[in-house]
Amino acid sequence: MNSAEFRRQAHGVVDWIADYLDTIEPRAPVPDVRPGDIRRQLPAEAPEQGEPFERIFADFERIIVPGLAHWQHPGWFAYFASNASPPSILAEMLAAGVAVNCMSWATSPAATELEQVTLDWLRRLLGFPEAFSGVIQDTASTATFTATIVGRDQAWRRAGRDARLVFYASEEAHSSVWKAARLAGFGESDVRRIATDAAFAMQPDALAAALEADQAQGRVPAVVVATIGSTSSTAIDPVPVIGRLTRTHGSFLHVDAAWAGSAALLPECRHYFAGLELADSVVVNPHKWLGVHFDCTAHYVRDPGLLQQSFALTPEYLRSVHDAEVVNYRDWGIPLGRRFRALKLWMVLRNSGAEALRAMIRQHLRWGESFGSWVDADPEFERMAPVSFALVCFRHRPAGLDEAELDQHNRRLLALINASGRVHLIGTSLRGRFVIRMAIGQRSTEERHVREAWDIIRASANRTGEG
Amino acid sequence: MNSAEFRRQAHGVVDWIADYLDTIEPRAPVPDVRPGDIRRQLPAEAPEQGEPFERIFADFERIIVPGLAHWQHPGWFAYFASNASPPSILAEMLAAGVAVNCMSWATSPAATELEQVTLDWLRRLLGFPEAFSGVIQDTASTATFTATIVGRDQAWRRAGRDARLVFYASEEAHSSVWKAARLAGFGESDVRRIATDAAFAMQPDALAAALEADQAQGRVPAVVVATIGSTSSTAIDPVPVIGRLTRTHGSFLHVDAAWAGSAALLPECRHYFAGLELADSVVVNPHKWLGVHFDCTAHYVRDPGLLQQSFALTPEYLRSVHDAEVVNYRDWGIPLGRRFRALKLWMVLRNSGAEALRAMIRQHLRWGESFGSWVDADPEFERMAPVSFALVCFRHRPAGLDEAELDQHNRRLLALINASGRVHLIGTSLRGRFVIRMAIGQRSTEERHVREAWDIIRASANRTGEG
Repeated sequence: MNSAEFRRQAHGVVDWIADYLDTIEPRAPVPDVRPGDIRRQLPAEAPEQGEPFERIFADFERIIVPGLAHWQHPGWFAYFASNASPPSILAEMLAAGVAVNCMSWATSPAATELEQVTLDWLRRLLGFPEAFSGVIQDTASTATFTATIVGRDQAWRRAGRDARLVFYASEEAHSSVWKAARLAGFGESDVRRIATDAAFAMQPDALAAALEADQAQGRVPAVVVATIGSTSSTAIDPVPVIGRLTRTHGSFLHVDAAWAGSAALLPECRHYFAGLELADSVVVNPHKWLGVHFDCTAHYVRDPGLLQQSFALTPEYLRSVHDAEVVNYRDWGIPLGRRFRALKLWMVLRNSGAEALRAMIRQHLRWGESFGSWVDADPEFERMAPVSFALVCFRHRPAGLDEAELDQHNRRLLALINASGRVHLIGTSLRGRFVIRMAIGQRSTEERHVREAWDIIRASANRTGEG
Repeated sequence: MNSAEFRRQAHGVVDWIADYLDTIEPRAPVPDVRPGDIRRQLPAEAPEQGEPFERIFADFERIIVPGLAHWQHPGWFAYFASNASPPSILAEMLAAGVAVNCMSWATSPAATELEQVTLDWLRRLLGFPEAFSGVIQDTASTATFTATIVGRDQAWRRAGRDARLVFYASEEAHSSVWKAARLAGFGESDVRRIATDAAFAMQPDALAAALEADQAQGRVPAVVVATIGSTSSTAIDPVPVIGRLTRTHGSFLHVDAAWAGSAALLPECRHYFAGLELADSVVVNPHKWLGVHFDCTAHYVRDPGLLQQSFALTPEYLRSVHDAEVVNYRDWGIPLGRRFRALKLWMVLRNSGAEALRAMIRQHLRWGESFGSWVDADPEFERMAPVSFALVCFRHRPAGLDEAELDQHNRRLLALINASGRVHLIGTSLRGRFVIRMAIGQRSTEERHVREAWDIIRASANRTGEG
């Protein structure tokens, strides 16, 4: 395909994308397909001869799009949102157009320096400590794993490689936190799931007791992960107390604020992030709430030198003359090659402006509180956790069902809600009970969609009595 | 930005990209900027009010583009190429447009099934073992690290977590291989750099001796990484022999064919990949030679169940009703969230067709051989390694210089070559000697660019005598 043909096809693709943005709402948020439905429409072999793009694009529309979930749908209340705003699409187009690899400063100086500048911008907007330096990782999973490796390596440095290291997080920490511990080599007996309080926040006394018991047995506390905004219920671990404990016991403190971190844009939410100055590392995902395409995880660390101790390894073919004066982000994480991801963060922050981003998040938080109050006001429903960051955990509670029956009942209810084809929600588990999560945070969502979701939920609950 | 404004701006962006593709050649492959040059043109704070996209785009053209390296330049002979063909740009645009997250089958069924189908296509095109299953990772670094974690965990499973595990690779293995070992927790005393022969290929006798010595001392061989096409010189480790050794000694065998793997498209290159059926894991980067944008690493494994043993961890909020029937790629690697990367692999394989990809690689291989013969024919130059996969390692060897002086001389020569502003090459180290790498593999490169590079190299060598 030459550039003239590219130009022609790309204009068609742009119109398709703009039309798609205009027509997301009438679509069902998730497709009605069964495993194998897509696969069986595709040939088993790649073609020997090239095919015209029109034919491929026709298959994209006919086979692929009907099998996609529409993450940008205004009725998307599942997981946490993965917002992709129009200026971010433009940035991704340009990044694909120039197709540079940002592994080192030398392999694209502007990409590295734009990453430094935009992460500084974001850090200031969030009120995170001035001393922190940022790097874009692909996911919060990777950032947490990266932090865990650093904490492990620093503990080995202090205590020797034969030391028995221990990893701590709240029992409500995200699965990626436990995965990070496992991948870094912590065995089941080397991880501590710290108990939580009524609000699903880590109990600092339980953490203190675990740290002391381990040290008394000659083990070395290596890594503590605190969460601000847990996935199940946006619970908020008490970072100021946890931070003082990790300072006392000498372990590395990583804070997972993947979803809720963006709310630090709001002065009225800043108090949730107290104590961050005691952390060694914190992760927030602009690709969740800020309209920047996945993948764009902002990973801030107090001391990038520790990242480099774990991750830098420079053979001759990666050296360049300015290495002593520049940041080479390949030394701040796992992968060598890196996409030009700062571009979308830059274009979104400039095109949106901080005020509009704050207004959007403020709106989502308000709708979350409203939704929580509707749940509270309805005697048939039960709110299952505090509402902090636009997430409401609830269940339907008809009379006469025991806990096991309530779990089954609410699983059926969730299926009915999603079968509406208007909204998409998922469930989670809190203290072993199945609850439904209403996660508000899509930028295309309006108040009417939140109200519609509640109507659908109540109507579906009424229908659970049928059949 | 609403969809109408997006449409308008996106058409402008498309024209800019098409113009960029048409005007890469006159640009210098790498920019003439100093550390901080970009940064100091950017404000220290994000704007409070949104700015019009025109203004941001003007800054992109004025500040960012002049600070980018042009990886798609026909004179790009540095590193290995990172090819991005027009159908791949179109696919990246569409992926940004639909903005789905492909962590699970349920979160976008078509994306998962397209990933399965296209990786099967590629596996067949490459003649890799039918038994292998594929997953797209971001980089070969990550794939090698992922494989290393699996090998470590399987060794722990067999020998217990207190066993002393050992990691093996050739002394010519890529830095990401040693990084993988370090990140997986192997200490310096747990890694073996196996000696290489005159062609920089791993000496299997040396590997056998190391395996036996470690086992005799009660250590457990956990992971062996073999390389087909090393970064410094595209050396080829003898996988058939290495595979028999790893079978005998029970360690996990990962094969790094990140660059050269694409050459398996050619029947005449298939012999280089003998023995792959003995491997547990192999990585090849379509984002290098096949015109598919970075990031698109094809990671094939014999037994995905082993990946899942290390990487799967499923809390309630990630469960879905079809989990038993589908592949959830989040369980095949480190990150939870995943971009829709199969789309570009699909669109490139279909739009290009296998024949055209073979023709391009065949051409690059032929030009590499020609270039090697020019080096051989010139008494002032010395070829420093065999030419296997379109990479020629050479140095200029004027009379009367000792080895240390030759290193300095060739560093100066490399700087002069790159100062031409027409080509970009890098150096590497072979047996401690500095050599210049001529890596052919950009899809926009024509034979005239290879000839021009050789002219520039010779002219630059003549100028090394000056001043």
